[in-house]
Amino acid sequence: MSTPSRPGPLRLGIAGLGTVGVGVVKIVAQHADLLALRAGRPITISAVCATSRTKDRGIDIAPYAWEDDPVALARRDDVDVVIELMGGENGAAKALVETALTHGKDVVTANKALLARHGNALARLAETNGRTLRFEAAVAGGIPVIKSMVEGLAGNRVKRVMGVMNGTCNYILTRMESAGLPYDVVFEEARKLGYLEADPNLDVGGIDAGHKLSLLSAIAFGTAVDFDAVVLQGIGAISIDDIKLARDMGYSIKLLGVAQMTGRGLEQRMTPCLVPETHPLGQLQGGTNMVVVEGDSVGQIVLRGAGAGEGPTASAVMGDVMDIARGLRLPTFGQPADTLTEAPAAVVGTGASWYLRMTLLDKPGALAKIATILGDAGVSIDRMRQYSHDDAHAPVLIVTHKATSDDIALALARFGESGVVVGQPMALRIEEV
Amino acid sequence: MSTPSRPGPLRLGIAGLGTVGVGVVKIVAQHADLLALRAGRPITISAVCATSRTKDRGIDIAPYAWEDDPVALARRDDVDVVIELMGGENGAAKALVETALTHGKDVVTANKALLARHGNALARLAETNGRTLRFEAAVAGGIPVIKSMVEGLAGNRVKRVMGVMNGTCNYILTRMESAGLPYDVVFEEARKLGYLEADPNLDVGGIDAGHKLSLLSAIAFGTAVDFDAVVLQGIGAISIDDIKLARDMGYSIKLLGVAQMTGRGLEQRMTPCLVPETHPLGQLQGGTNMVVVEGDSVGQIVLRGAGAGEGPTASAVMGDVMDIARGLRLPTFGQPADTLTEAPAAVVGTGASWYLRMTLLDKPGALAKIATILGDAGVSIDRMRQYSHDDAHAPVLIVTHKATSDDIALALARFGESGVVVGQPMALRIEEV
Repeated sequence: MSTPSRPGPLRLGIAGLGTVGVGVVKIVAQHADLLALRAGRPITISAVCATSRTKDRGIDIAPYAWEDDPVALARRDDVDVVIELMGGENGAAKALVETALTHGKDVVTANKALLARHGNALARLAETNGRTLRFEAAVAGGIPVIKSMVEGLAGNRVKRVMGVMNGTCNYILTRMESAGLPYDVVFEEARKLGYLEADPNLDVGGIDAGHKLSLLSAIAFGTAVDFDAVVLQGIGAISIDDIKLARDMGYSIKLLGVAQMTGRGLEQRMTPCLVPETHPLGQLQGGTNMVVVEGDSVGQIVLRGAGAGEGPTASAVMGDVMDIARGLRLPTFGQPADTLTEAPAAVVGTGASWYLRMTLLDKPGALAKIATILGDAGVSIDRMRQYSHDDAHAPVLIVTHKATSDDIALALARFGESGVVVGQPMALRIEEV
Repeated sequence: MSTPSRPGPLRLGIAGLGTVGVGVVKIVAQHADLLALRAGRPITISAVCATSRTKDRGIDIAPYAWEDDPVALARRDDVDVVIELMGGENGAAKALVETALTHGKDVVTANKALLARHGNALARLAETNGRTLRFEAAVAGGIPVIKSMVEGLAGNRVKRVMGVMNGTCNYILTRMESAGLPYDVVFEEARKLGYLEADPNLDVGGIDAGHKLSLLSAIAFGTAVDFDAVVLQGIGAISIDDIKLARDMGYSIKLLGVAQMTGRGLEQRMTPCLVPETHPLGQLQGGTNMVVVEGDSVGQIVLRGAGAGEGPTASAVMGDVMDIARGLRLPTFGQPADTLTEAPAAVVGTGASWYLRMTLLDKPGALAKIATILGDAGVSIDRMRQYSHDDAHAPVLIVTHKATSDDIALALARFGESGVVVGQPMALRIEEV
């Protein structure tokens, strides 16, 4: 694209007219003057593409050319930027993005799965073709977190990035607490409310949030995207008892993503954690998202906003579009794709206190046996409490001093062989924030 | 500046080597490789300028050329970007920025007072000279709020922007509450801790925070910076009783900046307000800053971080420097300076509930008189409470239904003439967040 003193309109091709696509069309139509004023040039839509041409979406798509085939959209001469809102980590979305980048188009996508799987290759493809690939909408909805990290905090070495980035999980956990309802009941509520993906494990299994974390890690630490290295643990095993016990100790349970560079490699985990209820992370209610970035100069920055929905996600897409309209051209992850390093995954996480909840057979020496196993595993106990009970099963809560996940895993394995632990113990990390 | 395929180093000239200037020098020195990787070119320092050449600042300035005169710094051929960290709304800082912009340099400044007074003219000067003038560090320290608003949320029409942007005031208010100490005592503490400006009224009078609000308003609403239109009220009259009474009703008192476009013009105020203690604004403790941006698409975005200090402020300066190094060139306030509109100031603010605290003479009919005055002023009462007392003075708390600041001002004036109100009543807006 040449850079005349008065650039012409930036022409969009939108692939995918679901909630977010409709939101983007609305913003472009309703804020045409405002966008032109801010970008210094008009933003227009040339063509759209979706599965159904006739579906009533509450917007008029007649002014735009129609394509049945997204790849054809990516080849159109009257499209400068392809907006990929189809979803899916392979297939049509990938073909669309690749075609667009190799046909002189910049790309804006909200597709976290695609980038978590193919982000390194696509970033490279964008650079070799002199194009821009941007993805603000893929992480934490309307929160400008990619921009903040890549640009605003570019003077910092990032020490840690954390986030609550799946609104459905946070809705379920906070609703369990506020209504005193068990997981299964709230899960069904969420399903009925349409909060869950077609495959709910993408949400409650932490996969969707893990995709997002892997993208933030790449930016934060200059490492190649490595979703497979993200330690994933879903929220399905969290009980209302866990939530209440955590609250009694001053903590909230969150599906928390944490990435940090350690002496043993890059640690990436998306797991339920205890966080202090006084920290903004602990106070986060419902479907809201939050990302916490810790830089060596800036300290702790907290960004909070809607993590999904038509308006917020479309807002993020438009932020990227406006940047492209204004001529900003940056590598996808903030530095050239071929400089992203292959960091080893830190198998053993940094140490932390742990919350352990288990049920013991109520017989002499059971508690002592547990304490001995912990000691032998190198885990020392900060607090231990056995609750009153009516049957032969005694609920026990233990908070440990700092221990690694390996030490905890070892202890849990030995609990299973101890003959005194009933069922599966729950082990949750207490994240220092 | 030409744009070769491999741009040379971006060369800085730093005017002012106080806390922030030292922080910038440290980042450039310590993160040279990281910055070059991210910017695609080295960031170097050519020259520095400060009041004392020999003062021990804990950094080695020998590698940099020295200028006694900031204007001479702004004229140097080996400087691409002038970083203005001198402060002051006129005089040397203004001359420095003007000289830099007219001598082919981009400018990064942390000077909110300068921009609140001369931002429109300086933005215009930058544009007519084809230069960039950036000021992330001038508002809310390390929080990338300017970038988020100008760029990340560029697809939104902003509905309201709010912020707690003076850490000293928030420190004083939260310390009063946590320690149960009166204003004067905590003020002295803050002074001894070095939290206060040489002229404390810049902090506790709301002027510094008002400067910042006026800059956010310009970006949010596309209006010329109009600091004189900011309604200012300091925190000096807030008593420990106010803080306790507010807390009893579920509110915190914050020096809160609010800007919104109304049917009657642009409303800008920096005043102590009650905000719900459950909102992130109400939970903000100590010297931390917070900005809340409400966009028509994105909803409510909350940004939180350190509002001052060497590292955070230097981080913001470096964010601007990195943008310039990467070739981003935007108008200072997000749209061309000559398109910023002159919005009339909304003299009458939007309606709100109000907190009114006063002391009444304990005589028959006093409370009725107050209630009548409020009714006559068009202010209806939501809650009213008279507290038990030992002397002839009865403390009274009133929470009103929605009323304008004009209605409240009218009622307050009549309270003064009523013969039953002792001293000055306290009136605080309850901001709906």
